[in-house]
Amino acid sequence: MRDHSVRNPASRSFFDVIHQVRAEVTAGEVADYIPELGKANPDRFGIAATSVTGRSYAAGDSADRFTMQSISKAFVYALALGERGVDEVLDHVGVEPSGETFNAISFDELGRPDNPMVNAGALVTTSLIRASSAEERFEKIRQGLSAFAGRELEPDDSVYESESEHGDRNRALASLAKSTGKLGSSVDEAAEPYFRQCALLVDSTDLSIMAATLANDGVNPVTSQVVVSEDITRYTLSLMASCGMYDRSGQWLFEVGMPAKSGVGGGIVAVAPGEFGIGVFSPPLDEAGNSTRGVAALRVLSEEHGLHLFRHLDRPVSPVTRIQMDPRSRTVRVVLRGVIDFVAGEMLLHETLKIAGTEEAEESGTIIFDLEAVTSVAEVATTLIRDLDIEVRRNGWTIEVYDPSGVLEA
Amino acid sequence: MRDHSVRNPASRSFFDVIHQVRAEVTAGEVADYIPELGKANPDRFGIAATSVTGRSYAAGDSADRFTMQSISKAFVYALALGERGVDEVLDHVGVEPSGETFNAISFDELGRPDNPMVNAGALVTTSLIRASSAEERFEKIRQGLSAFAGRELEPDDSVYESESEHGDRNRALASLAKSTGKLGSSVDEAAEPYFRQCALLVDSTDLSIMAATLANDGVNPVTSQVVVSEDITRYTLSLMASCGMYDRSGQWLFEVGMPAKSGVGGGIVAVAPGEFGIGVFSPPLDEAGNSTRGVAALRVLSEEHGLHLFRHLDRPVSPVTRIQMDPRSRTVRVVLRGVIDFVAGEMLLHETLKIAGTEEAEESGTIIFDLEAVTSVAEVATTLIRDLDIEVRRNGWTIEVYDPSGVLEA
Amino acid sequence: MRDHSVRNPASRSFFDVIHQVRAEVTAGEVADYIPELGKANPDRFGIAATSVTGRSYAAGDSADRFTMQSISKAFVYALALGERGVDEVLDHVGVEPSGETFNAISFDELGRPDNPMVNAGALVTTSLIRASSAEERFEKIRQGLSAFAGRELEPDDSVYESESEHGDRNRALASLAKSTGKLGSSVDEAAEPYFRQCALLVDSTDLSIMAATLANDGVNPVTSQVVVSEDITRYTLSLMASCGMYDRSGQWLFEVGMPAKSGVGGGIVAVAPGEFGIGVFSPPLDEAGNSTRGVAALRVLSEEHGLHLFRHLDRPVSPVTRIQMDPRSRTVRVVLRGVIDFVAGEMLLHETLKIAGTEEAEESGTIIFDLEAVTSVAEVATTLIRDLDIEVRRNGWTIEVYDPSGVLEA
Amino acid sequence: MRDHSVRNPASRSFFDVIHQVRAEVTAGEVADYIPELGKANPDRFGIAATSVTGRSYAAGDSADRFTMQSISKAFVYALALGERGVDEVLDHVGVEPSGETFNAISFDELGRPDNPMVNAGALVTTSLIRASSAEERFEKIRQGLSAFAGRELEPDDSVYESESEHGDRNRALASLAKSTGKLGSSVDEAAEPYFRQCALLVDSTDLSIMAATLANDGVNPVTSQVVVSEDITRYTLSLMASCGMYDRSGQWLFEVGMPAKSGVGGGIVAVAPGEFGIGVFSPPLDEAGNSTRGVAALRVLSEEHGLHLFRHLDRPVSPVTRIQMDPRSRTVRVVLRGVIDFVAGEMLLHETLKIAGTEEAEESGTIIFDLEAVTSVAEVATTLIRDLDIEVRRNGWTIEVYDPSGVLEA
Repeated sequence: MRDHSVRNPASRSFFDVIHQVRAEVTAGEVADYIPELGKANPDRFGIAATSVTGRSYAAGDSADRFTMQSISKAFVYALALGERGVDEVLDHVGVEPSGETFNAISFDELGRPDNPMVNAGALVTTSLIRASSAEERFEKIRQGLSAFAGRELEPDDSVYESESEHGDRNRALASLAKSTGKLGSSVDEAAEPYFRQCALLVDSTDLSIMAATLANDGVNPVTSQVVVSEDITRYTLSLMASCGMYDRSGQWLFEVGMPAKSGVGGGIVAVAPGEFGIGVFSPPLDEAGNSTRGVAALRVLSEEHGLHLFRHLDRPVSPVTRIQMDPRSRTVRVVLRGVIDFVAGEMLLHETLKIAGTEEAEESGTIIFDLEAVTSVAEVATTLIRDLDIEVRRNGWTIEVYDPSGVLEA
Repeated sequence: MRDHSVRNPASRSFFDVIHQVRAEVTAGEVADYIPELGKANPDRFGIAATSVTGRSYAAGDSADRFTMQSISKAFVYALALGERGVDEVLDHVGVEPSGETFNAISFDELGRPDNPMVNAGALVTTSLIRASSAEERFEKIRQGLSAFAGRELEPDDSVYESESEHGDRNRALASLAKSTGKLGSSVDEAAEPYFRQCALLVDSTDLSIMAATLANDGVNPVTSQVVVSEDITRYTLSLMASCGMYDRSGQWLFEVGMPAKSGVGGGIVAVAPGEFGIGVFSPPLDEAGNSTRGVAALRVLSEEHGLHLFRHLDRPVSPVTRIQMDPRSRTVRVVLRGVIDFVAGEMLLHETLKIAGTEEAEESGTIIFDLEAVTSVAEVATTLIRDLDIEVRRNGWTIEVYDPSGVLEA
Repeated sequence: MRDHSVRNPASRSFFDVIHQVRAEVTAGEVADYIPELGKANPDRFGIAATSVTGRSYAAGDSADRFTMQSISKAFVYALALGERGVDEVLDHVGVEPSGETFNAISFDELGRPDNPMVNAGALVTTSLIRASSAEERFEKIRQGLSAFAGRELEPDDSVYESESEHGDRNRALASLAKSTGKLGSSVDEAAEPYFRQCALLVDSTDLSIMAATLANDGVNPVTSQVVVSEDITRYTLSLMASCGMYDRSGQWLFEVGMPAKSGVGGGIVAVAPGEFGIGVFSPPLDEAGNSTRGVAALRVLSEEHGLHLFRHLDRPVSPVTRIQMDPRSRTVRVVLRGVIDFVAGEMLLHETLKIAGTEEAEESGTIIFDLEAVTSVAEVATTLIRDLDIEVRRNGWTIEVYDPSGVLEA
Repeated sequence: MRDHSVRNPASRSFFDVIHQVRAEVTAGEVADYIPELGKANPDRFGIAATSVTGRSYAAGDSADRFTMQSISKAFVYALALGERGVDEVLDHVGVEPSGETFNAISFDELGRPDNPMVNAGALVTTSLIRASSAEERFEKIRQGLSAFAGRELEPDDSVYESESEHGDRNRALASLAKSTGKLGSSVDEAAEPYFRQCALLVDSTDLSIMAATLANDGVNPVTSQVVVSEDITRYTLSLMASCGMYDRSGQWLFEVGMPAKSGVGGGIVAVAPGEFGIGVFSPPLDEAGNSTRGVAALRVLSEEHGLHLFRHLDRPVSPVTRIQMDPRSRTVRVVLRGVIDFVAGEMLLHETLKIAGTEEAEESGTIIFDLEAVTSVAEVATTLIRDLDIEVRRNGWTIEVYDPSGVLEA
């Protein structure tokens, strides 16, 4: 597979990034707070990306498996939103960055953990998955995360046991959540599934598909399975944007600008919404617990490929390719192109009102919006067109739409 | 102007929002920490939006003037980035949400205020504007913010004096920043210009134009003045996304999903990047210091118009309208449309490689990418096409581009 | 018993205090964080004092029984010091006031709870009592506290069960201590005995005897049982002085100046070292969790009876009653009285050196210290006298001691 | 002077302590937060003690001069109490240990600095000294502290200037106190006198006399000047006991058990109430800012001389030397001795009631309390005797007192 990938220009940039980052970034320490994690090989480094069309590109040690650790928090949060609904989940865990480290004791004035990306909040999130036992809870989580990845994930039992053995602080956090009424289960029935979800094994390509599912509005682009709803996807991405990179989340949004989540196993997932998901793996961590090479690689990719949330595309040229008037049939054909968003819709509005919107317009006729070269129409633009229709009818004009590709129905 | 606006469908939605929110939202208290602010009329409520094309829409008390207060922080941060560069600014003030209230004493382990949206950080930001006196510093800030707004802004002197009189806590924050070596001036030469920038008077339309300047990559869409660079715009929006709404910033990103900044004068600015800026004004505040009606109005607008950062447009239809083969001239015309982003580029890649990318391709020829109906081409897609060109040349094929609108040069 | 007490002048002052405080202090709320405590009658109010001679005085509802709650912390700390020694206990729990509320999550940089008077520290203290089960641990604690009280104490099982049922926060604190390696047992084997020790029933007289045991260097003055050593008593009193009254401990030391410990059951113990112990009971609590009437009563007693630690007795008159010289036998009889502390010893030193300490003293002889009217001799004074002996011997003088009461051997 | 001292047994123990501690304690770093302090010679080490009789004992480099630094806080607090009264001072600064470092930003819910021993509180304390200028304020402080020391103290101007130059954090703390309404002057009129009071030069003997003034109820035992009242002395000692040794205050009370205050200049004052004051000087500091050798020396002295607050003297023998009955004159002479405190008073009460307190007592007479060998009578005992008098009169008995030394009038 690697040979083939090299030939693909989309993969090549990842190879370049790995080459560059491996040379430049040597800092970081492999996590050792539990002995099993300390065994990771610090030299391994892999990247994979999967687009919303379902194609994956990979480079480096992208087939190496490692445990998800905190990366699981983002996806289990999505599952909990699916099970309980956003209001009930918000009753139990907040959405504010805590400004503190991941294992901080950080509860808000309502007794909620600050957010689901700190351990206290993740334990609550896990406890919200409805189940009658710890085993059932974990099995539901395993299946849900497998749906994100598009294959059956399995835990590394020795890592799980190590986490459980050294898990008193997490049990304490769960007890605190229990004492404020926010834990949805007993302490052990939250903590044990949580330790096991953290121990689920993935490779970089798995992570990229999980991320691509979020990039693709909750639909796994490889299996086409609807894993979560579009709303849940949006909420999950919002939290990854504000809280995903521990207490470096602000800096991450500032510099890299992609919703992301890291784990102390060395993995990071990052999402380019509507485009693709990325999975990176390299065990050495910075002080905040983020993979040093992973952070560097994503910074380079964001910079080179313009992936920052606020590095939007250059302003498009006018959505109106041309306006064809036919005096005989009293029709005006407005040929449109590309994405009709608010700005395009507003331009269209002004053009149309120039033709038909003023009361001085003595004569009436038909305006045809030709959408053949249009790729999508935003909700706000649809509203503008609908209101525009009402407006021009007062002056005796009619709006018709030519939509051979069916973009309005999408 | 208002009569005219009612007829405009783009304005009408704002009237509807004002009507709905005024009926539903009655909570909140007018700020009274300084006496002058307490005089505001709690019933006033205005909204304005300005698109990146420079057109403004307004509703309600959109011509009421009020003081910017903390809204100024975001724009002065942009000015400071312009003066000092991002590295020097980052040396002095961080970019992490603090999880605390706006006037918290919140410094990181490097002695930096946590971010420029808390008072401590804003005072540092102001101090970084190079000037030889408090007056000169304020004058530079006033001119910079006026450039964002597209008109000469002036302070309310009585509010300024009231702020200064009750400003000991802010002076303390400036002294702390001074003691950690992060203040770029004396305490008073930071505090006094800061108090005055907070007292600058704006109306909702001013705010919408300031926001639209950020939506438009730093170019004021009304005056066409380049106020700040695209990079600075991106950084500023990032901070508004992570820290703009005090200690409700996480919830804001979760629910509303627009970079924004509020002030205790009752104003809020919000940005739909690439599309438009919004200014809202209503004096009653919630506990976090955000205008209750302003928050509600922006929540409704975000929901109705799909403005959430992660509510991206539905996946576009294929960027390839049709492929025309001409066996005689051995040309293949690939007619494209809309935005060519990573995903579109990737689709294109695969289509092209089907034609010319395999080594089994016995014959060679020319592939013409017809960009007439294309509105923009992302950087990442340009890279893909460039790499694709290298790849197909190995098999004797050539790629040509037909770009009558010049979208590749944009 | 009450009638009899009224006749005793020592009791009468307690009646007066109850009368005065009941009239003046009506604030406070009965603890209701567990339902069982909420059932307490807010009108009940009792005081008892027991002197180091073993006599008790009581007034008001001094026979009402209530649960010890946090008062147990001080005495179990004393027991833990006895079992483990001060160094081992200090390895597990600190001795610094936390400046926070009693159930705060307050650990120092060594992972120790800040002190044994906050819940986290008390749980650690309990865990340090060596036992092979929760039951055995509680039984040892029960016996130890019974030794302090001089009678068999028994828990209120319904309060215990209520505490255990609402005990998740305390279990969380124990888990945190476990995670930092400071808990001496499993979480449950610390928490359950802790809940039960808090539920031990006492009346005000019991508390006064427990306090009197601390006042009497660890010897129960009623039963004469040696409960803890003098060193342990000193350590325990030190902690009660610095941390005994929750986050009002500083104010308490400032105003009342007695080592004390309060419990949310409404009880307070206070110690006048070397003199007597006081127990007070009245259920309504202030915001810090201290009995409002209890605090007021002890403030009045401290003020009226001069019990503040730093309101020492007026400087005694000279310890030297008279000096009798007998030229014939070349003896000097120095008749002393009262307490011979450092200052008295120093006065004695100077008097003696005037007689025998200078090299010019031509003749030698014997100095007799007559201790018949002396009540005690401090260690430092003994040292001074010993050194003085060495000094005067150089000049040929001898020191003899007449000590009919044996105060030097005490 | 040193030679002479060696001969004095009271001094000799200090020499021994210096010798022992110098050999054992080598840790610590000279303060360098301002350059001037960094010049101190780390080898210097002096101790002095002054008893309430006014005699001083000194050893080592006890004549070396150094700046008081934070030691001044305790004495200026006493002066402020004298100027403003305890209630007004308590309105401005609290009395709770903060659990934080000396320069922490530590204000309570009333806006008061936590206590006068942290910098924020000390600045408030200084600001409460009434004056119309910074100079006048400092001059009053200088005179007050000179009265404690018994000689004219003068500041080290170069240290003062260095403190002022690096004083932004302290100015910030003063501004915060100003913003909460707790500063009694402008920021500079508090900060500058504070910097100067910290720069006052003292030697170990000066400190011992200042401490002895507190040991002696506010009366300088050398000059006999009444510097502050007994009440103020008590309050000041209370704060030194709870907050005097920075964030090691709890440990200090636990181990050493003397009210004390340290300064980063290397000095420590400690008080044995009613007995003597100690001054120690050695520049190297531990992490909390306390002189390492100073702490060690006071720990040794406390241990060897039994100076811990709760290491009270052994329980005195009975205060009743003998009871002489004279049937003819119907008088009972009760010969007392030593200190008549509560316990002695209570013993007396019981003896007396055995004679005259029961209603069955058929005959009446006179009880004479012979106080010739009594050195002091506590307030509480006086009350008991007064009440006893009322009680026995009911049975026809009279109490008379023989008090040749006038201890009852003291």
